Amino acid sequence: MPYKLSIIGSGNFGSCIARHCAANIKNVPEMDQHIKMWVLEEIVNGESLINTINTTHENVKYLPGYNLGENVEAIGDVVECCDADFFIFVVPHQFLPATLQKMKGHVKNTATGCLLTKGINFKDGKIQLLTDTVEEIIGIKCGSLMGANIANEIARGDFCESTLAFPDIPERETWKQLFDSPKFKISCTNDIVTQQLSGTMKNIVALGGGIVDGLNMGQSTKAAILREGFVEIFDFAKMMFPDRGVDILTMIESCGFGDIVASSYGGRNRKCAEYFVKFGKTFQECEAELLNGQKLQGTLAAAEVYKILVERKATEQFPLLTTIQLISERKVAPTEIINYRGHATVASSA
Amino acid sequence: MPYKLSIIGSGNFGSCIARHCAANIKNVPEMDQHIKMWVLEEIVNGESLINTINTTHENVKYLPGYNLGENVEAIGDVVECCDADFFIFVVPHQFLPATLQKMKGHVKNTATGCLLTKGINFKDGKIQLLTDTVEEIIGIKCGSLMGANIANEIARGDFCESTLAFPDIPERETWKQLFDSPKFKISCTNDIVTQQLSGTMKNIVALGGGIVDGLNMGQSTKAAILREGFVEIFDFAKMMFPDRGVDILTMIESCGFGDIVASSYGGRNRKCAEYFVKFGKTFQECEAELLNGQKLQGTLAAAEVYKILVERKATEQFPLLTTIQLISERKVAPTEIINYRGHATVASSA
Repeated sequence: MPYKLSIIGSGNFGSCIARHCAANIKNVPEMDQHIKMWVLEEIVNGESLINTINTTHENVKYLPGYNLGENVEAIGDVVECCDADFFIFVVPHQFLPATLQKMKGHVKNTATGCLLTKGINFKDGKIQLLTDTVEEIIGIKCGSLMGANIANEIARGDFCESTLAFPDIPERETWKQLFDSPKFKISCTNDIVTQQLSGTMKNIVALGGGIVDGLNMGQSTKAAILREGFVEIFDFAKMMFPDRGVDILTMIESCGFGDIVASSYGGRNRKCAEYFVKFGKTFQECEAELLNGQKLQGTLAAAEVYKILVERKATEQFPLLTTIQLISERKVAPTEIINYRGHATVASSA
Repeated sequence: MPYKLSIIGSGNFGSCIARHCAANIKNVPEMDQHIKMWVLEEIVNGESLINTINTTHENVKYLPGYNLGENVEAIGDVVECCDADFFIFVVPHQFLPATLQKMKGHVKNTATGCLLTKGINFKDGKIQLLTDTVEEIIGIKCGSLMGANIANEIARGDFCESTLAFPDIPERETWKQLFDSPKFKISCTNDIVTQQLSGTMKNIVALGGGIVDGLNMGQSTKAAILREGFVEIFDFAKMMFPDRGVDILTMIESCGFGDIVASSYGGRNRKCAEYFVKFGKTFQECEAELLNGQKLQGTLAAAEVYKILVERKATEQFPLLTTIQLISERKVAPTEIINYRGHATVASSA
C-alpha cells in the first residue's frame, strides 16, 4: 500500500508547497500520487474556492496564476484528510491547535507530520514548539521544514533551500524526497529546537535590519546587527531548551543564516520597520498601510521573547532582542539600535 | 617607558585606522600618545603629502575631510618608524613583502604586529598567511584585525565591529584596547587562519552575490548562495590548514558572517559582478569603468583558489567557489550560479 499525503492548509505557502510536492511526488515511488489538501471553504468571485481548485487546479485566491497539479484534491472537511500517512501542516499559527483538535482521534498512530508554519506558542513565560503541539494533540511524530524560502519565489521556480528537522525516524528519507529538488535544496538536522526558534525569531532580527535601513546606516552596521541577532537567537534556544540537542551548526543551515539574511534584506518585517523609523508610524499603522491584510510576525515575537527575558532577568544576555522591543514600544529612539549593549540594563531594572 | 605605535601604511584604510587609534590611544595608559605613520611621499596639489599631513593633520589624498589627530606624525622613511613596540601593517597586499624587507634588522624582537591588509599569498598551489609573511621576514609575532568594517564608514563614526585574531600573547589585551570603542566593537579569537582566509575569500562570495543581483534573482536565492559560500570558506580553511586550530565559531564572528554579508550587499566585488552580468562586460572592463583605479580583489582570489582546487582535485567539494570562477572566465553562463553542484565535475575533468 503506497503512503498517502495530506496537506493541512491552503494559503499562499500551503498552495505553493502543494504545487511543489505534487510535482515532486512523482519521483517518490513509495507514495500514492493523489494528494489531499484541506481547504477552508470560501466564496471567491461568486464561486466555491474548493470547486474552483478541483476544476481549474488553481488556487485563485492565494496563489493565482499557478497550476497546483491535477493530483491535488481540495477537501473541505479536515477529517476526510485524516487517512494519510504523511501530513504537512501549513495552517496559520493561531489556527493550528483548533485544527488539530478536529483531527484528533481520526489519525493513524503510525503517521508522521511535518510542520511548515513558522511560530512558537508563548504561554506564561514558557514556550512550546509547534511540533510538540502536534505531538501532544494528535499523538504523531512531527518534524518541520524551515528556511529562506519565500512562497512566491518557490512557486516561480527560484532556486532556494530549506532545512528539514526531524527526530531520527525511518520516514525522514521519504520526507526529504518529498521536498528536495534541483531548485529546492533540502538539508537535514535532528535539532528541531534551534530550527524552529530561528524560524520565528529571525523576524525580530529582520526588524533590527529594517531599523538600520530606516536610519540609512551603512552595510557594516547592518551586518553587525544581523550577526548579533544570529548569536542571540542561538543563545536563546540554548537557554530555553538546554537538554534538547541545541547545536550551533543548525544556525549555519538555511533555517538560520539563510533565513536571517533573506528576511533582513527582503521580507515584510524589514519593510515595516524601515517605514516605522522613516515616517514615525506605529507598527500597527505600518501593518495596515503596507501589508494588505497580512500580519507582522516580528513584533509579536519580539514582545513575547522580551516578556520571557524580563521574567528570567536575562535581558543583559540578550541586549539586541531587548533593544528592538524597547524601540518598538518607542521607549528608546530607533538610533539606539547601535547602542544595544546599554539598554539591557535599563530593561532589567524596569 | 610607554610603548610606541607605528602605522605602516597610509592609504584610505590606513588613514582611517590612524584617525581611530589616535583618538582611542588616549584611553590606553601604557601607550605613548605619539603615533608614527609611514607615508609614501607624493606630490598632491603641488605640495608634499607628508608636509600637508603634518601641518593640516589631514590626508588630503586618501581620507579628505577628516582630521587624523595631532598625535599622528607622517614619516617618509619606514626605517624611522621601526623603533616601535606595536606595528599596524596596512599597506596594500602586493607591497607588504618589499616594505618588510626594508624594515628587516631594524625592529625590536619584543615588538608585536597587527595586520589590517586583507589578502593571502598564493604560490605554487600553496598559500601563506600574510601574518606568517610578517613573522618570517621581520621575526615578530603578528596577529590581524578583520571584519565588516568599511574604511569610510569607520571614519564617519558608523557603528561596526571587527575580529582581532592573535596567538595567545600578553600584548593581546593592549591591542584590543587600541581598537575597541563604543562604535567599533572588537571580539578576540586565537583562530588566525579562518579569520584571514575569510577576510580574503568573502570577496569571492560577494562576486556570487553580485551575479545573483545581476540576474534579478530573489532574496532566497541570494541567501542560499551566501550560505554555501560561508560553508565553503570554512571547509577551505580546514583543508589548507588542518593543524592550526581552524574553528567554525570564528566564522560567526564579524570576520566571517559579518564580512560576507556586508560585502555581498555592499562592496565593489558585488557591484562589478552585477555589472558583469547585466552588461556582458569582462571583469577588467567593470574594474576600469566602475572602480576609479581601485582593484577588484575577488576575481584574483577566485582564480587563485580555483587553481588550488584543481591541483588538489577538490573542485567537487567546493562547487560554488568553482562555479564562480568558471562564470568569471565565461566558461559557463551566469545563470549557472544556481546549478553550482553540477559544475564541479566539469571543472575537475577539465
